[in-house]
Amino acid sequence: MKLATLADGGRDGTLVVVSRGGTTFAPAKGIAATLQDAIENWAEAEGRLQELSARVEQGSADGQEVLDVKRLAAPLPRAWQWLDGSAYPSHGELMDQVIGVEVDSGGHPLMYQGVSNTFYGPREEVPFLRESDGIDFEGEFGMIVDEVPAGRSPEDCMGHIKLLVQINDWSLRALAGREMKTGFGWIQAKPPCGMAPFAITPDELSDYWKNGRITLDLAVDWNDKRFGKANGDAMDFGFHELVAHAAYSRTLCAGTVIGSGTVSNANFREVGSSCIAERRGIEIVDEGEPRTDFMKFGDTVRMAAVTKDDDAPFGVLEQKVIKA
Amino acid sequence: MKLATLADGGRDGTLVVVSRGGTTFAPAKGIAATLQDAIENWAEAEGRLQELSARVEQGSADGQEVLDVKRLAAPLPRAWQWLDGSAYPSHGELMDQVIGVEVDSGGHPLMYQGVSNTFYGPREEVPFLRESDGIDFEGEFGMIVDEVPAGRSPEDCMGHIKLLVQINDWSLRALAGREMKTGFGWIQAKPPCGMAPFAITPDELSDYWKNGRITLDLAVDWNDKRFGKANGDAMDFGFHELVAHAAYSRTLCAGTVIGSGTVSNANFREVGSSCIAERRGIEIVDEGEPRTDFMKFGDTVRMAAVTKDDDAPFGVLEQKVIKA
Repeated sequence: MKLATLADGGRDGTLVVVSRGGTTFAPAKGIAATLQDAIENWAEAEGRLQELSARVEQGSADGQEVLDVKRLAAPLPRAWQWLDGSAYPSHGELMDQVIGVEVDSGGHPLMYQGVSNTFYGPREEVPFLRESDGIDFEGEFGMIVDEVPAGRSPEDCMGHIKLLVQINDWSLRALAGREMKTGFGWIQAKPPCGMAPFAITPDELSDYWKNGRITLDLAVDWNDKRFGKANGDAMDFGFHELVAHAAYSRTLCAGTVIGSGTVSNANFREVGSSCIAERRGIEIVDEGEPRTDFMKFGDTVRMAAVTKDDDAPFGVLEQKVIKA
Repeated sequence: MKLATLADGGRDGTLVVVSRGGTTFAPAKGIAATLQDAIENWAEAEGRLQELSARVEQGSADGQEVLDVKRLAAPLPRAWQWLDGSAYPSHGELMDQVIGVEVDSGGHPLMYQGVSNTFYGPREEVPFLRESDGIDFEGEFGMIVDEVPAGRSPEDCMGHIKLLVQINDWSLRALAGREMKTGFGWIQAKPPCGMAPFAITPDELSDYWKNGRITLDLAVDWNDKRFGKANGDAMDFGFHELVAHAAYSRTLCAGTVIGSGTVSNANFREVGSSCIAERRGIEIVDEGEPRTDFMKFGDTVRMAAVTKDDDAPFGVLEQKVIKA
């Protein structure tokens, strides 16, 4: 099942159910007004949304319309909690080397809490104040849970993963190292993220959802040029383990979003990267200095997780950087 | 003006206006259903709430009742964003020494983002899973802003500080050092905070609100024994500077809560501390090892910021630690 949110209808938008092909939709009116409502009442809402999804697939749902992605907000336009991991070790190790910080996670997942009161929609222009902050994209995967009581095991947590999403974690690299060195995590270096059009149930990915990992290739294009196509499989902790880490001492409220961190593969010299910082890191290691600059106002980034048949289950995230 | 939130009426409770003495209240019905509603429409709501406050003071408000603090939730039972500073240098320096981390903030305020979907009410029992996590309180001050556009100066930000609060930032010390060393900030070490009964407008403090600082003594009692009484004045950055730091690259949504970090004074050996970790740090420095243990199930902590006349403008926060 594919869910999306129309931008109209208040800050949380209006929940709709989308056809598998991503071309038509019908409002979820009468089931849940918003995705937050749905996830708070998932046990009750899921079956009814699935029934509506079947009708949408047949083209027989009430109020069914052709989908214009420009009308969409993020599937979850704001969340009560956004926790971002860094679960791709090839990315983490390179970044530590470049920032000059030796990260010791003690065998636990890495995770910070980020701004969650805004997730940009899949075609929304993204305003920044200064190019000099080092504007960078970060292509990653994410998931949304229903309520997870504190202290649950990774196995229990797997069952709380209700929806999968694809995220662009906007980052300001000139500020990241300084903040990281405080040990307090990032405030200034991490403005709001963007989300791809569709939140999908894990079954929608069939075998591509495996061991708590989204094993799709994440195709990233910067200014219409291919920048990377890393596979999501290489996480050192699966999403169920990230959820359990986050829920160690807090109950996760329904609608908590947890991210994978920048998708990265050990053969990044072949498959490319999901953020500029990683490419710059490779350049520093290989050539002694970074040669690729960060984004400029007017630049665009396009991200789509794709199957072997080039199907994009989350739709396509296309964002343009503008001056605030 | 003093505001509070009755626990009934959904997750965000019901906004009420409280008399200066904290003894009676009247519902803000017809002005704003919740504190979040009020802060989102502050320009319009403030004057009407002030009028209601005047009627409450005269005892002539519709539906005015005697206040039982046990009926209260946190003034803001959940927030879209909670950012906590560490603005008392005497605390920070001691903690760094004890944790064995050298924090270099580069002249900027220290700040992390914490869980905001729950703030415990002033008499709510606080559940923890394990005593071995090192359960600790942290007495601090906080403030609530209306929307702050990204990139505002500290002077501009001063005008966005609409309400002041008093917070207990619950902390799990056995986990804090490990998380801090990752550079990613705290997830497991920082479960939800508690809030004292009343959110107050800055004018309510008259001269005690000075240069973006709440210059009250914060009286902290652990199991009914005085533990500390440090003054709030000693921040190295005022709240307006913390707001500007947070808003450097993100618009702060209305209802963002920002904390001061543990209130601490350089003469902590005389005035005591606002958290156990600080006292343990002093013991380590003075005696070579910590002698005070962390909290046990059944322990209580009481916090009240007091004027020279022993008036407590935020009311009294009293919490009991229980096994989850």
